[in-house]
Amino acid sequence: MSQKLRVTVWNEFRHEKESEKVRSVYPNGIHEAIGEGLGAEFEVQYATLDEPEHGLTEDKLNNTDVLIWWGHKAHGDVTDAIVERVHERVMRGMGLIVLHSGHFSKIFKKLMGTTCDLKWREADDKERLWVVSPGHPIAEGIGQYIELEAEEMYGEHFDIPQPDELIMVSWFEGGEVFRSACTFHRGQGKIFYFRPGHETYPTYYNEQIRRVISNGVKWAAPTTREYPVYGNHKPLEPIKEKVRG
Amino acid sequence: MSQKLRVTVWNEFRHEKESEKVRSVYPNGIHEAIGEGLGAEFEVQYATLDEPEHGLTEDKLNNTDVLIWWGHKAHGDVTDAIVERVHERVMRGMGLIVLHSGHFSKIFKKLMGTTCDLKWREADDKERLWVVSPGHPIAEGIGQYIELEAEEMYGEHFDIPQPDELIMVSWFEGGEVFRSACTFHRGQGKIFYFRPGHETYPTYYNEQIRRVISNGVKWAAPTTREYPVYGNHKPLEPIKEKVRG
Amino acid sequence: MSQKLRVTVWNEFRHEKESEKVRSVYPNGIHEAIGEGLGAEFEVQYATLDEPEHGLTEDKLNNTDVLIWWGHKAHGDVTDAIVERVHERVMRGMGLIVLHSGHFSKIFKKLMGTTCDLKWREADDKERLWVVSPGHPIAEGIGQYIELEAEEMYGEHFDIPQPDELIMVSWFEGGEVFRSACTFHRGQGKIFYFRPGHETYPTYYNEQIRRVISNGVKWAAPTTREYPVYGNHKPLEPIKEKVRG
Amino acid sequence: MSQKLRVTVWNEFRHEKESEKVRSVYPNGIHEAIGEGLGAEFEVQYATLDEPEHGLTEDKLNNTDVLIWWGHKAHGDVTDAIVERVHERVMRGMGLIVLHSGHFSKIFKKLMGTTCDLKWREADDKERLWVVSPGHPIAEGIGQYIELEAEEMYGEHFDIPQPDELIMVSWFEGGEVFRSACTFHRGQGKIFYFRPGHETYPTYYNEQIRRVISNGVKWAAPTTREYPVYGNHKPLEPIKEKVRG
Repeated sequence: MSQKLRVTVWNEFRHEKESEKVRSVYPNGIHEAIGEGLGAEFEVQYATLDEPEHGLTEDKLNNTDVLIWWGHKAHGDVTDAIVERVHERVMRGMGLIVLHSGHFSKIFKKLMGTTCDLKWREADDKERLWVVSPGHPIAEGIGQYIELEAEEMYGEHFDIPQPDELIMVSWFEGGEVFRSACTFHRGQGKIFYFRPGHETYPTYYNEQIRRVISNGVKWAAPTTREYPVYGNHKPLEPIKEKVRG
Repeated sequence: MSQKLRVTVWNEFRHEKESEKVRSVYPNGIHEAIGEGLGAEFEVQYATLDEPEHGLTEDKLNNTDVLIWWGHKAHGDVTDAIVERVHERVMRGMGLIVLHSGHFSKIFKKLMGTTCDLKWREADDKERLWVVSPGHPIAEGIGQYIELEAEEMYGEHFDIPQPDELIMVSWFEGGEVFRSACTFHRGQGKIFYFRPGHETYPTYYNEQIRRVISNGVKWAAPTTREYPVYGNHKPLEPIKEKVRG
Repeated sequence: MSQKLRVTVWNEFRHEKESEKVRSVYPNGIHEAIGEGLGAEFEVQYATLDEPEHGLTEDKLNNTDVLIWWGHKAHGDVTDAIVERVHERVMRGMGLIVLHSGHFSKIFKKLMGTTCDLKWREADDKERLWVVSPGHPIAEGIGQYIELEAEEMYGEHFDIPQPDELIMVSWFEGGEVFRSACTFHRGQGKIFYFRPGHETYPTYYNEQIRRVISNGVKWAAPTTREYPVYGNHKPLEPIKEKVRG
Repeated sequence: MSQKLRVTVWNEFRHEKESEKVRSVYPNGIHEAIGEGLGAEFEVQYATLDEPEHGLTEDKLNNTDVLIWWGHKAHGDVTDAIVERVHERVMRGMGLIVLHSGHFSKIFKKLMGTTCDLKWREADDKERLWVVSPGHPIAEGIGQYIELEAEEMYGEHFDIPQPDELIMVSWFEGGEVFRSACTFHRGQGKIFYFRPGHETYPTYYNEQIRRVISNGVKWAAPTTREYPVYGNHKPLEPIKEKVRG
């Protein structure tokens, strides 16, 4: 029996079909570049928007420890039923890693409760992701910063709840900053948002970026516990009768 | 021109109409007991479920600094359009105080992103709310704890995101604990969840409880700032041209 | 009787005496520039290192709601006894605003429990402080960012505990970022660390910087409550006798 | 080469020598009961107060991934030099688990920056530790709560900084609550405070308590990274010359 963490990489997978430029960077889709980066340490499977149930069948999610999410131009095409299914799985402990433009996905907005809006610019900004929580396992093996020669810019204000842990902050050549690596706990699930990865840049081939995603998968792995008991609860101690009037 | 904070107390206002027992405790509705507790320091108005637009018209919300929410048995009757309207106002800075069974309201669940489920029991438990953040302004003027002779029990696990600040933790006679006073920031809005206040107990006449709610209103008051700018952003600094291959 | 918040601005006040360059920027000392910026809204007094008890007598601290701290080259000359006195006042609710190079002061390190180390550079970097918590009262009245034409650079990693609230993040021309406006709660006291203000720049005359400091004073104001009771505590409920053996 | 986490259990080890009652519960010392509970999964060594350098030599600490600390009546006998040494190791990533009365140890107070004071009572209170963060790895394998038939009571207010994560809250028979399982990050080190374990109770033989401590060790394991670089930093980007006047 496999002891490996089971990771499902979900990708919208439309840019790659429609744009020559994107296809030249990710010929097999962004999902496969991400999955390849995870390597043999994990058991990797894929799912994409245009498959039935967006590839996220009950069966596949029941066999997923951590779900990675990349979406951008078709957030609205993800059905509410699948969003509910993923949400319910996160509540029960499945890890979720939301990448880049996934900040505007239905599932991320539902989990955050905010608009998740931000500033952006496609102008080949240099990006430098500085580690601000050097003891965090997601930063394991990473230097003081990760430098990307060119990326899409995302700038503050990023409308998210205060992260439970802020791990990296980006500096952009054009003058902005961004909280680029953030963790959140929702229900029994652990959520990791990681900024880089615009479809026209080879970001998911970068070894440091791949390391962060692998670290994130390990961090987001489910904790083995029974689901909490909710609802009407019998007293564990005697309750004195009160005289009310 | 009034400088007072403008508070709208929203109440489902159905228990009071349908139950003799509840009416005997809150003859004018829970909302009026809460509003009376706020006193002359604030400009108080009311809104209830069965009014048009649940009493939460655009005009009334535009004149609300802090909204207090009490609901219980009819969460599903609140239309999604009004929930969106309230949510949008919180994003733009309106304070929101969610009381007791409001933990299961649509607006609270939408803001939290979790199930907001919990344990409960109607058995006249004694409750003792211990202050764990004595320097927080919401605890101003409050002793080491507030004791309520009898209340409905709410027990952990309470399925909320980790609060930004945890101010009180309840001890219950029957053996449970609960995070009873919690704050959250969402968008530009401040949210205060406060546990006590089952409809059959005179909790909202308790002076300490009233003080906490008043403190909460002051804490949740909007900050005067322009709404952040989102979207496509011009560089503030020159960006070097990159050679890509 | 005055209802104004009583602010004491503490300054090391040595650079100004020893350096013509610094004196030309702050002829009456950095403390007076900061105090002047607070304006008539507060009751301002001053204290400096070379006064007896560093100007921080029992009497003065007993009449201080919020203490502002600027120090740089002589942290070691502050006696441990005065550090203890200030620490004890913070535990009991006095607010503390630590500015710029005060990150290395004895009192800040004692409150943080970490090294408080960072990167720095004196090279006329442009600094842009981006607001990341737009709803926080410390950001009231502040635009999307504050731009300073030239300042000393402070860069991550900044070795502090995760702030309770992160309000601003700085972008620096030379390529670094920094968590520039952070709050912490310690004991009953509220602590606000604010980065800008190297002695050779006219930063404390900047209207936006002054506004942030004034906002910080209001935020850090003490909460009126009795000091918590610690030590041996009689049971509030009967405890059943246990048979042990 | 061993891949096991190297755990050092430090114990004051005086109660056991001086009190027949304590010795009857922990004949080989509290440290050995804790070490035995960790089991073969870890590489366990011990250190006690009355050894030279309190058993915490440079060599031993250099071979320690996680240090567990139990002290009570002799906090003052721990030399400042050893406290500094342990503190420096935590800054560089060593995990630290502080148990029970260790809340008043020099090292914990130094790391927290607060008084770490609390209420207490030795009266055979029943304690029930409720899990409030069910997804946290420290709660792995733990039920809804851990019940201890009799323990010393610790009650709020517990004067610590707001924990980075609150994992368990205790209910006490005599009417109090306590934040019993809390995590903190300081420097590169992870700190876990866990409340139970008065010397006269067999708490460290309890399987659930042992599981929590083992979980805590794994959680607190160091992250493999270089120590951050601090101090004077050369620019990574060109800085324009400023004209100052």
